[in-house]
Amino acid sequence: MAGQRYLYDLADGDASMKPLLGGKGAGVAQMMKLGVPVPDGFTVTTAACVDAMSDGGAWPDGLWEETLAALSRLEERTGRGLGDPERPLLVSVRSGAVVSMPGMMDTILNLGIGDATVEALGREAGDPRFAWDSYRRFLQMYGEVVEGVPAHAYEDALTAMKRGRGVTEDTGLSTDDLRELVEVFKIVSRTHIGADLPEDPKEALRRAIDAVFRSWLNPRAGVYRRANGIADDLGTAVNVMQMVFGNRGDTSATGVCFTRNPATGARELYGEFLLNAQGEDVVAGIRTPRPLAEMEVVLPEAYGQLLEVMGTLEAHYRDMQDIEFTVEDEKLYLLQTRDGKRTAAAALKVARDLVEEGVLSREEALARIEPGQLDQLLHPALDPAHGQQPATRGLAASPGAAVGEVVFDSDTAERRGKAGDAVVLVRWETTPDDIAGTLVAQGVLTAHGGMTSHAAVVARGMGKPCVAGASDIASDAEASTLTIGDLTLTEGDAITLDGSTGEVFAGALALVPPQINEDFAVVVGWADDVRRLGVRANADNGPDAAKAREFGAEGIGLCRTEHMFMEQDRLPAVRRMILASDDAERANALEEILPMQQADFEAILEAMSGLPVTIRLLDPPLHEFLPSLVDQALEVQRLELAGDTHPTDLRHARALLAQIKKLTEQNPMLGTRGVRLALLYPEIPQMQVRAIARAALAVADRGGDPQVEIMVPLVAYAEELRRMRTLIAQTLEAEFAAAGRRLEVPIGTMIELPRAAVVADQIAEHADFFSFGTNDLTQTGVGISRDDAEGAFLSAYLDEGVVPDNPFVSIDVDGVGGLVEIGVQRGRSSKPDLKLGVCGEHGGDPASIAVFERLGLDYVSCSPFRVPIARFAAAQAVLV
Amino acid sequence: MAGQRYLYDLADGDASMKPLLGGKGAGVAQMMKLGVPVPDGFTVTTAACVDAMSDGGAWPDGLWEETLAALSRLEERTGRGLGDPERPLLVSVRSGAVVSMPGMMDTILNLGIGDATVEALGREAGDPRFAWDSYRRFLQMYGEVVEGVPAHAYEDALTAMKRGRGVTEDTGLSTDDLRELVEVFKIVSRTHIGADLPEDPKEALRRAIDAVFRSWLNPRAGVYRRANGIADDLGTAVNVMQMVFGNRGDTSATGVCFTRNPATGARELYGEFLLNAQGEDVVAGIRTPRPLAEMEVVLPEAYGQLLEVMGTLEAHYRDMQDIEFTVEDEKLYLLQTRDGKRTAAAALKVARDLVEEGVLSREEALARIEPGQLDQLLHPALDPAHGQQPATRGLAASPGAAVGEVVFDSDTAERRGKAGDAVVLVRWETTPDDIAGTLVAQGVLTAHGGMTSHAAVVARGMGKPCVAGASDIASDAEASTLTIGDLTLTEGDAITLDGSTGEVFAGALALVPPQINEDFAVVVGWADDVRRLGVRANADNGPDAAKAREFGAEGIGLCRTEHMFMEQDRLPAVRRMILASDDAERANALEEILPMQQADFEAILEAMSGLPVTIRLLDPPLHEFLPSLVDQALEVQRLELAGDTHPTDLRHARALLAQIKKLTEQNPMLGTRGVRLALLYPEIPQMQVRAIARAALAVADRGGDPQVEIMVPLVAYAEELRRMRTLIAQTLEAEFAAAGRRLEVPIGTMIELPRAAVVADQIAEHADFFSFGTNDLTQTGVGISRDDAEGAFLSAYLDEGVVPDNPFVSIDVDGVGGLVEIGVQRGRSSKPDLKLGVCGEHGGDPASIAVFERLGLDYVSCSPFRVPIARFAAAQAVLV
Repeated sequence: MAGQRYLYDLADGDASMKPLLGGKGAGVAQMMKLGVPVPDGFTVTTAACVDAMSDGGAWPDGLWEETLAALSRLEERTGRGLGDPERPLLVSVRSGAVVSMPGMMDTILNLGIGDATVEALGREAGDPRFAWDSYRRFLQMYGEVVEGVPAHAYEDALTAMKRGRGVTEDTGLSTDDLRELVEVFKIVSRTHIGADLPEDPKEALRRAIDAVFRSWLNPRAGVYRRANGIADDLGTAVNVMQMVFGNRGDTSATGVCFTRNPATGARELYGEFLLNAQGEDVVAGIRTPRPLAEMEVVLPEAYGQLLEVMGTLEAHYRDMQDIEFTVEDEKLYLLQTRDGKRTAAAALKVARDLVEEGVLSREEALARIEPGQLDQLLHPALDPAHGQQPATRGLAASPGAAVGEVVFDSDTAERRGKAGDAVVLVRWETTPDDIAGTLVAQGVLTAHGGMTSHAAVVARGMGKPCVAGASDIASDAEASTLTIGDLTLTEGDAITLDGSTGEVFAGALALVPPQINEDFAVVVGWADDVRRLGVRANADNGPDAAKAREFGAEGIGLCRTEHMFMEQDRLPAVRRMILASDDAERANALEEILPMQQADFEAILEAMSGLPVTIRLLDPPLHEFLPSLVDQALEVQRLELAGDTHPTDLRHARALLAQIKKLTEQNPMLGTRGVRLALLYPEIPQMQVRAIARAALAVADRGGDPQVEIMVPLVAYAEELRRMRTLIAQTLEAEFAAAGRRLEVPIGTMIELPRAAVVADQIAEHADFFSFGTNDLTQTGVGISRDDAEGAFLSAYLDEGVVPDNPFVSIDVDGVGGLVEIGVQRGRSSKPDLKLGVCGEHGGDPASIAVFERLGLDYVSCSPFRVPIARFAAAQAVLV
Repeated sequence: MAGQRYLYDLADGDASMKPLLGGKGAGVAQMMKLGVPVPDGFTVTTAACVDAMSDGGAWPDGLWEETLAALSRLEERTGRGLGDPERPLLVSVRSGAVVSMPGMMDTILNLGIGDATVEALGREAGDPRFAWDSYRRFLQMYGEVVEGVPAHAYEDALTAMKRGRGVTEDTGLSTDDLRELVEVFKIVSRTHIGADLPEDPKEALRRAIDAVFRSWLNPRAGVYRRANGIADDLGTAVNVMQMVFGNRGDTSATGVCFTRNPATGARELYGEFLLNAQGEDVVAGIRTPRPLAEMEVVLPEAYGQLLEVMGTLEAHYRDMQDIEFTVEDEKLYLLQTRDGKRTAAAALKVARDLVEEGVLSREEALARIEPGQLDQLLHPALDPAHGQQPATRGLAASPGAAVGEVVFDSDTAERRGKAGDAVVLVRWETTPDDIAGTLVAQGVLTAHGGMTSHAAVVARGMGKPCVAGASDIASDAEASTLTIGDLTLTEGDAITLDGSTGEVFAGALALVPPQINEDFAVVVGWADDVRRLGVRANADNGPDAAKAREFGAEGIGLCRTEHMFMEQDRLPAVRRMILASDDAERANALEEILPMQQADFEAILEAMSGLPVTIRLLDPPLHEFLPSLVDQALEVQRLELAGDTHPTDLRHARALLAQIKKLTEQNPMLGTRGVRLALLYPEIPQMQVRAIARAALAVADRGGDPQVEIMVPLVAYAEELRRMRTLIAQTLEAEFAAAGRRLEVPIGTMIELPRAAVVADQIAEHADFFSFGTNDLTQTGVGISRDDAEGAFLSAYLDEGVVPDNPFVSIDVDGVGGLVEIGVQRGRSSKPDLKLGVCGEHGGDPASIAVFERLGLDYVSCSPFRVPIARFAAAQAVLV
């Protein structure tokens, strides 16, 4: 694009330019503005990456010239030159996306080192060994990242040399050894690439920047983006900065720290450092670092400066910061600062503290909480009374408890986790490639790495329990065993992690429901003050209803009655009803079911006394309560082929098969269910309405305040609802007349078919309320059978980016959201005070809640555990 | 309702009051205005019926008082009194709906006769026998219609008396016999009702009017209304008119006539009469009447007057009239006039003649043709070269040929016809209760009754072939045999009718396609001048395409490609493609299919040279091409239980079962099909596009003008179409580049999912045209699986009036039509010149075409045989 500017010197940027400079580039530029010590450099913008990617990787016009110009400005400022044999400039080339994607993309360090410069670097540092070590590190990193040489090629050469020298640690190699290793690494690179690495460091810089661009498109980055809802077309910025060395001896160090504790939110020192190391060593978890407090002893001046800088940065960003730093020869440099990822508990504590410290308003604090993350607070923990001794202990890297079967690699975890198995991923250390396994595991256990290791950061972000650096664990991926002292666990054995304490237990321990703490109560209270949308829960029984109320549900938005039909002790009566050969037999079976339904309803109405409870009449097609057609056909054939040993069995089996055939549908989703079933067999809704009326009367008689509402599913035509309303009203009236006591019972309908949304004005005439059933509205509106699609084309669509999100998880805004919008407008056009809710699973999804707020619904209803999340999300929907 | 007027004297009405007075009442009132002789009387309005029915049958306030007032005005005008022993007034009480429903509702004649008046009537007529015969007829009719006494009760008594007197005909009974029969009939009535019939004729009148009200709701009337698209809530008017007697000896007569021939449309005398008979005798087909021309001899004066009146009425109504008349003592009375039901051929001829006679404009003539009726012209006729001798001959009562198996009762006809069997209903005479059987039969044959008998009128209205009054047929419903001379046919034997000649053949004769005659060509030419909508056809092969073109199709709107996959010689290759274990194997199978598809496309493009042909890419899910899951599971179990006699068979069977299981879907309608399949297996659309390109190039090379368009099915997301468009365009480009010749190929999409309609603006950006697939849009929009619903809840919904019409036959205007409207508006909002069509079966339905005209679509596409109907309907849609 003509006139486009693709590069910015650090001094020219600031935090507001994050979309262009990425989080890291904007953060460093801002730090420079704040007077915080950072290495000098420049940033290639995300726009450059996007333009290059959209043109098949070709750099846009002018980008290279701008890069050379920025490089020469940097050379001028530092008084150094890239490739200069006297005063060589070494740079790092780092990715930096707008939304942080830790470890997902590539980085090249020490660029500028080479045969021409290595001696000068050694001279300046007074440490030739450091220079040669940096050189061999550069060759390895550049070869792997830029040229795609497999990592093991260099590792094998290094291992061979150590073996030859009879040493076990890298540090056992002498300067001459490293010099020789550099030559060996060059041969390795040449062998794999078929050409020499570029001698010209500018060409190397060009290729390094290009490699970072390309790393935006690598598969693990794609998986991470989809898991975190990051758009694929943002691109990454590339930060080119002068190298500072944490590995120039014991006056140098590198570290990571948070301005508050990211696990608890407490205002305390939290961080780790390694003396004489490069930053990658901390983050990658290869060496286990030391607590930050110990730095006060070994590097007191830099430590004091760091504390001061932490204060400056938190005050500026008004949020907890996650900081990377390097000390080179006792001089502190900040390499990165960003809002720190935190556990949900920490998010709440930090929010509450920042409000109490007067840093943030309540609304600002609320807007910063990621509501989806609160999920982790709402998951079970270990039963405190378990009384078990842990088999071992590691770092409490991500809170919460996990129980599952041991698996030793990410692929197995992914496969089994997707199949619905509870697995715990156990790794020596995790790498970014383990993300897919982590996503579906119950928790992660690593033998190596600290609180800020890759495994810990990723697990915290996902709310997965993680125990890291459990160093007396030996996991043997080849043999599929896990050894903890004397204990040996094989793949498939049960294990329990407590990510809040770092404890690891053999076997499956019992879990208890989560407890909502004071921070939670306080902050969710702010959300309740702000939000307009009501929040109800979907619950089918008394205990779930009670749990929902505890979580702050303001009613039950969807009480499904079919689960009550499915229970083992009721299924025989339900089947008798379905298979009844006449009305009397059916009525008889229904009589048997009635008191059971009534008892269910009583329990729910008791638990929700004083709050509305919307009971939906029977929805699924009847054949769902019968054996499958294939199974029954096989049974009949088996009996037939066995001869007439059991003629009665065969007769019964055939009769059942005939009935199943009659009820089986090509497309049950679009078949005889919901209101259609109710109109065909009015005895069923009559029985249900009687049970509802009697339950409500019983609760009222016991002094409760039952606020029951009756909801008709799958209405497409106003006439269906008109007839059902008459049937329901007459049945209620008969019950109330018999009891001599009347209760107010609003009657409404699901809006879950596109037709219902389109003719909502007609339907509204017979409805006291609508509840948008966005699950089925998605199935019919988009034409996707949920049962089929998620295993078939929908997963392919998600993988290939045909659709941005799974429409069953987050509402399809334009399509299904568009239908809801039509339903809202038309429904209110004929009945302005119509009460409107939503009870699909989208009711608990923050992005969907924002849509429902915009469309002006009255409430959302979601599963009990999502209620607090919905309360937050509803508040945020108002604030944005 | 206060101030409502429920009754009108005939003199106060006219034709414009038809909605209130019904067709019969308004017609008679208008005749009175025109000076045509009619019996005096008054009409109870449809509003009275509606108000009574909506209040559970209770008469609205004031209705009875108004009735008594109208009665006394009538008594004053006639100088007679109801129940007056000197000058008794006798009245008929007839139903009269707004839309004619011949024979469906009830009528009571001779009301006012009784012990007090019978003698005076005999005295006045100079014929006591006539008076007593009228009395016993009244008792029978009143008992049956008003009190619900079974018909056989009176018939049995009558038969017993005839047997006792040794006579076979009613006319053999003497006056005294009839006097005795009256007493017997009174006892019969008392026995069944448990009370005497009312002595007060005013009370009898009240009950008679009430019975007519109630007959609106009788089942056969309901069936007729649904078959003819008449609303259930219109109600019927009730006409109370002074009795005139066609049965007062040989100077009296009754008859029915048309002002033109209703079978051919020719301007000629057409009608029948019976001397000394009441009107019901003609219509019910109990006696076979004489041709109208013979009346000139026996009743010359009345005949001349009738011809004059026919001219007056046709001139007034500007349309062919269907007239009922009675001659009492040589004095002519008109009882009814209405626009005559006619065959399609007659409708065209009459329209053409009326235009040529200067009576109607072309537009007026077009507007009067019922386009659905034209269907009958487009159905096959007997092959003229059949060379068979007819087994017998009857009246050519309704044209067209029918081949089917003999059935002897309406219930069997209904059951077997609905099951898809071709049946011919054979009856001694038909009654209104036979309507359900007639509806689904191929044709109707009666042994008795004339051209205006019930069977003939109903069959003509439905376009069903009918041979009536085939008097040498003896049909024995008990024994289920049909005897024609020596020939005996049993239920289930084949028979052939020619309703255009009256011939009946044993066995199934060959039929030939319909020929379009000159009237058709002329009148359809007017329609083409008037209509705005284009009319295309749905066709999948060359012969169908040629047929469509012959019927005037202006292109192919939908060429389905899956039928080509289904053909027996192709299925093996198609299955190999589906079961391919790798891409190479799949590519191989597709290579085999390509030339077959290409040949199909060439045939179609040749046939439609110069006209657009829209080819839809493969739509159905792959498992449709495989055996069913149940069948294959049974096969595997059978092989398993048979032991390992054929281990290879078992292995193959299991492999196939596994593949079927993988592809089988819970809801295939919402599954992996259409564009989803194409994106998962791009080799399939690539092959199809190659075949299309090569076919078009081949046709062009041979001098043809291929106008091919490619259509993508089941698009929900714009991104799907964007990707498919790229794939299609690239594949076309490769073919055209190889051929060195380029053709213009528009690329468009089906709009058949609600989401697609809602985001039509986004989709339009990638589409050259939209075709609304209203079949699938109905399935997803209304949430009805067509495969399931028509046998299940949808038929119940239609029977019970929950939905007015089958939404798969006539478009659901508010719901699916609403979605189409949204799609049209949004699609054109982003691409104003977007070409819009519809290719669901609704494209051939006149009511739906009116909707598509209103929504501004560019064309409809329907089956070839519906093309002329669509051309008419499109013209009418402009005219209304």
